Amino acid sequence: MAEPSTSPVGRGRLEAFSDGVFSIVITLLVLDLRLPEGDVDSAGYLVWKILALWPQYFGYVLSFLIVGIFWVAHHFIFHHIRRVDRPLLWMNIFFLMALAFLPFPTTLISRHWAWAPSVWAYGGTLCAANLLLNAMWRYATRGGRLVDPSLSPELVRDVNRRSLRAVAVYVAAMLVAAWSPRAGLAVFLIVHILYILPAALDRHWTPKENHP
Amino acid sequence: MAEPSTSPVGRGRLEAFSDGVFSIVITLLVLDLRLPEGDVDSAGYLVWKILALWPQYFGYVLSFLIVGIFWVAHHFIFHHIRRVDRPLLWMNIFFLMALAFLPFPTTLISRHWAWAPSVWAYGGTLCAANLLLNAMWRYATRGGRLVDPSLSPELVRDVNRRSLRAVAVYVAAMLVAAWSPRAGLAVFLIVHILYILPAALDRHWTPKENHP
Amino acid sequence: MAEPSTSPVGRGRLEAFSDGVFSIVITLLVLDLRLPEGDVDSAGYLVWKILALWPQYFGYVLSFLIVGIFWVAHHFIFHHIRRVDRPLLWMNIFFLMALAFLPFPTTLISRHWAWAPSVWAYGGTLCAANLLLNAMWRYATRGGRLVDPSLSPELVRDVNRRSLRAVAVYVAAMLVAAWSPRAGLAVFLIVHILYILPAALDRHWTPKENHP
Amino acid sequence: MAEPSTSPVGRGRLEAFSDGVFSIVITLLVLDLRLPEGDVDSAGYLVWKILALWPQYFGYVLSFLIVGIFWVAHHFIFHHIRRVDRPLLWMNIFFLMALAFLPFPTTLISRHWAWAPSVWAYGGTLCAANLLLNAMWRYATRGGRLVDPSLSPELVRDVNRRSLRAVAVYVAAMLVAAWSPRAGLAVFLIVHILYILPAALDRHWTPKENHP
Repeated sequence: MAEPSTSPVGRGRLEAFSDGVFSIVITLLVLDLRLPEGDVDSAGYLVWKILALWPQYFGYVLSFLIVGIFWVAHHFIFHHIRRVDRPLLWMNIFFLMALAFLPFPTTLISRHWAWAPSVWAYGGTLCAANLLLNAMWRYATRGGRLVDPSLSPELVRDVNRRSLRAVAVYVAAMLVAAWSPRAGLAVFLIVHILYILPAALDRHWTPKENHP
Repeated sequence: MAEPSTSPVGRGRLEAFSDGVFSIVITLLVLDLRLPEGDVDSAGYLVWKILALWPQYFGYVLSFLIVGIFWVAHHFIFHHIRRVDRPLLWMNIFFLMALAFLPFPTTLISRHWAWAPSVWAYGGTLCAANLLLNAMWRYATRGGRLVDPSLSPELVRDVNRRSLRAVAVYVAAMLVAAWSPRAGLAVFLIVHILYILPAALDRHWTPKENHP
Repeated sequence: MAEPSTSPVGRGRLEAFSDGVFSIVITLLVLDLRLPEGDVDSAGYLVWKILALWPQYFGYVLSFLIVGIFWVAHHFIFHHIRRVDRPLLWMNIFFLMALAFLPFPTTLISRHWAWAPSVWAYGGTLCAANLLLNAMWRYATRGGRLVDPSLSPELVRDVNRRSLRAVAVYVAAMLVAAWSPRAGLAVFLIVHILYILPAALDRHWTPKENHP
Repeated sequence: MAEPSTSPVGRGRLEAFSDGVFSIVITLLVLDLRLPEGDVDSAGYLVWKILALWPQYFGYVLSFLIVGIFWVAHHFIFHHIRRVDRPLLWMNIFFLMALAFLPFPTTLISRHWAWAPSVWAYGGTLCAANLLLNAMWRYATRGGRLVDPSLSPELVRDVNRRSLRAVAVYVAAMLVAAWSPRAGLAVFLIVHILYILPAALDRHWTPKENHP
């Protein structure tokens, strides 16, 4: 229903729609946390039942952080995009398709954390989401197509490099999982926490410049 | 609680509310993806269980694309609408009712893909959503009621023609399903991918005009 | 965390948050539509299984329309409200609590439509939502507290009268249900369709004034 | 994908994204309300089954109010924040992680209200959310880092004091639960209603100043 080369959806609505999907995906993760049916006959048994869900808590925390990271990365990209055309619109929908799929492999690693195929499905979904997000960035920045022409080429290359590095880490974690699924999952957690940590470190470094 | 001929809800809020429904419908689709209960005793068996869900993946991808297409079409229509009156407001709610229903026939084609009634329910829902969206367009453009008076009549007719063509294709797929449900589903997938493809092709055709 | 008499949340965010709840409630209704488990061995049996869900379709359509009506009424009220204070903020949260509860009695009338207590729970929830919404209107308009002082007293009274009439109809439907639950449900459906119909009728009456 | 010390996400989007999570969490609570399967053979039995869900209604109302309170507190904080940096962005995501977790302990207190560990899990989640929200406030206000420099130190201290008081009450309720889980839950309900009540009281006190 739209002409070939322009998008009927502006940047603002695209971001708002994507934000909606992000916030729903991140909140749906809790639906996977369920105590198995059955009567409870002592406080100790209930504590044990709650603690026995630790793989579910692990999946919840890991996927919550990852959706958060993708949300930040998505905003970073759209912060630099000036206008939206139809290819970018559809690349974004395919990206959201990969992202909204994440609760499924999250359930896999929560229920079947001892088996490598769970980790492969999880890592594969992350690779797909990452590659689609990076494809949007490459498409938008090639020849300054949809971005501010003054955008520095270093920044463009730096984002591409980080994205490839993330995919490389995901593939490495999937290979590790062939040997030990638990070690593969640990790689996922450690890598994403390392990614977020600088934020915590900034806390001690940046105050000076912030209030002169 | 509103006077008869005006809408208490402006265009912006109507679009935002509809976007909310779109993003929730598209994200809920993943809830249908569930591994059957039961213990897993080998990596191979888990791979088999994951792959055995292929009809669910098919339903997820197909419905995700279709909701995306409707979202784009909805924005295209509201891009041209200048103001909202009560009839349009209620046509929009009925359209959302058809759209929000889609997860149910999606589950049908995922679970019972070998039987024609699933495809009929799926196609019927798409026809209803399409006809309601087109009714909004016809209502808004008749005599320039709610659109910019300078809107070209060719565009109005073109949108109507595309909408009827879509309904014709849906009906054809439903007829094919009476003979082979799988073939009917294949028609749905192929037609919607063909619809999206120009976007991918634009990629090679439009760069020149975009940065002169 | 807020001072007593002012609201830290402006009108825009309150409406956006409420819209979010409205759109999620309306979309969650489809989750109640589920084909019973079990194998299907013929197209005819599948058709029968799909049709046997008619009470669920009834509940879906009825509650979708009702949430739509409440959404429109909520916007009508906030269209006239100039500013938000803490009491109004909390009345709105209690109203949303009643509205977000609706999927539960919807399931009741879908599963147990032959028994009056389902209809009572459904009607009771609607009464609560209606009375809370009207309490917001009365609170905001008393002495022109939160509305434009030029708001006509006739409009204020008219809205109050419509709200009381709706509660009277709900109570009547609940009384009818004591005699025949099906008749009680029919009253709910008919009354709400009658409420929406003027919108369809406007279609033939208003075009003239819309484009002079 | 972002430079170390600035946030690619502005205050407006951060609030909108958080509002999305708030509205989904608050609406998902109803999914926990389900009548147990099984045939109903009399109106009286259905009434009994509906009433027997009272612990679920209690959990629904309590968590709905608490999410509402956190939503108001979150807006209060962001009302005073002028800009967002990466640490604050990630503190907000961790806060949302605690908040979005709430439906899980809500199910615990609904299903296993007679056992203390349910109350501990519930109170622990509330403490985590509260401490993370307060950490955001302390981080943003320290040395006027992210707030208006003219923000009164009394307000800063007052908010911190209220937050600590809330955590103290949560811990007290958890201790009470060790002796009687029901009493612990009652403390949660009473304390939060007391928190909201001033809003109702304002109703009688503030009209004068509102329209002079």
